[in-house]
Amino acid sequence: MTGDRGGEERLERQLAFMVEIDRLKRILRQTLIGDGSRRENSAEHSWHLAVAALLLAEHAPAGVDLARTVRMALVHDLVEIDAGDTFCYDPNANLDKEERERLCADRIFGILPSDQGAELRELWEEFERGETPEARYANALDRLQPLLQNLHTDGGTWRMHGVRREQVLQRMQPIHDAIPALWPMVERALQRAAERGWVK
Amino acid sequence: MTGDRGGEERLERQLAFMVEIDRLKRILRQTLIGDGSRRENSAEHSWHLAVAALLLAEHAPAGVDLARTVRMALVHDLVEIDAGDTFCYDPNANLDKEERERLCADRIFGILPSDQGAELRELWEEFERGETPEARYANALDRLQPLLQNLHTDGGTWRMHGVRREQVLQRMQPIHDAIPALWPMVERALQRAAERGWVK
Repeated sequence: MTGDRGGEERLERQLAFMVEIDRLKRILRQTLIGDGSRRENSAEHSWHLAVAALLLAEHAPAGVDLARTVRMALVHDLVEIDAGDTFCYDPNANLDKEERERLCADRIFGILPSDQGAELRELWEEFERGETPEARYANALDRLQPLLQNLHTDGGTWRMHGVRREQVLQRMQPIHDAIPALWPMVERALQRAAERGWVK
Repeated sequence: MTGDRGGEERLERQLAFMVEIDRLKRILRQTLIGDGSRRENSAEHSWHLAVAALLLAEHAPAGVDLARTVRMALVHDLVEIDAGDTFCYDPNANLDKEERERLCADRIFGILPSDQGAELRELWEEFERGETPEARYANALDRLQPLLQNLHTDGGTWRMHGVRREQVLQRMQPIHDAIPALWPMVERALQRAAERGWVK
């Protein structure tokens, strides 16, 4: 900060960012909300993930910094504001996902004062790399949340897109690795989903 | 926890809570989202608030525990799942708000293992009392977020409900008290809103 004008400009950038990220409420995911009435947006999904991080903290990988995971959950989808949500079971859409999201990261984190922009961008990059305990935990939650949504909407997007059980099991591996206490539930749920014809 | 079955039941309660709170995505507030296309729901509002807590941390009251404020923002509206959102400028609806929300708190936090239910309920009660630095900061953000939404939707709910400038200024007092660095912006914005006829 360089005096009063610096402080004022800093605040203006923070408020501009706050206004800009409202657009995440218009980014629709494939997943339906719990009553199946509409698609979920990435803002409410991010909220659900952050609460899940709190709820399941005792099952997280050893040494997880919970507050950092929550911050990561809150910002992990901001790059979708320009790039859109990429359906995880669509291989073509995933080809240029990285490039689209990187361009959005440049723009959106650039709205903030540079120290803050760098901090939030680092959280997003850490999430994408999926290597730290916090990123592994956040990624596992990011798989668990739509799993629960699909289980409570009679198969939801699995059924709509004809997804195979093996695809789901593979997609859920981060849960196996980061929250092993949950894995028996995942296997039982997918067994039930297969019996009901929700997955192929 | 009392052995394996206790651990399993604990996990089941945590997942049941995670499924239950999905309903917050269907609780509509008066406030519109940034492009004015629809009303905002309380889940995406809670996300926006939690991110705002991160963004504006340097302007928060001295001694704020930021991680606690974020947790508070994430759970502060859960009681609306049964009680609905109560429009702040509707005096009649506010008469029984407390009782409706208390009943919902009993039910919803009761889904969780008792230690976790008590912890989240305490966060909500602390927010409602508005006394700690974290609660004062979270309450101020809870006023700021719809202020920004209204400013970017040509007066939004102020105009729709014929709200007076003095009512808004009074409603915004928590910003004055907890985030004084923002107050000049609030005054300027309401001056502009009055000139444009967005507030009476």
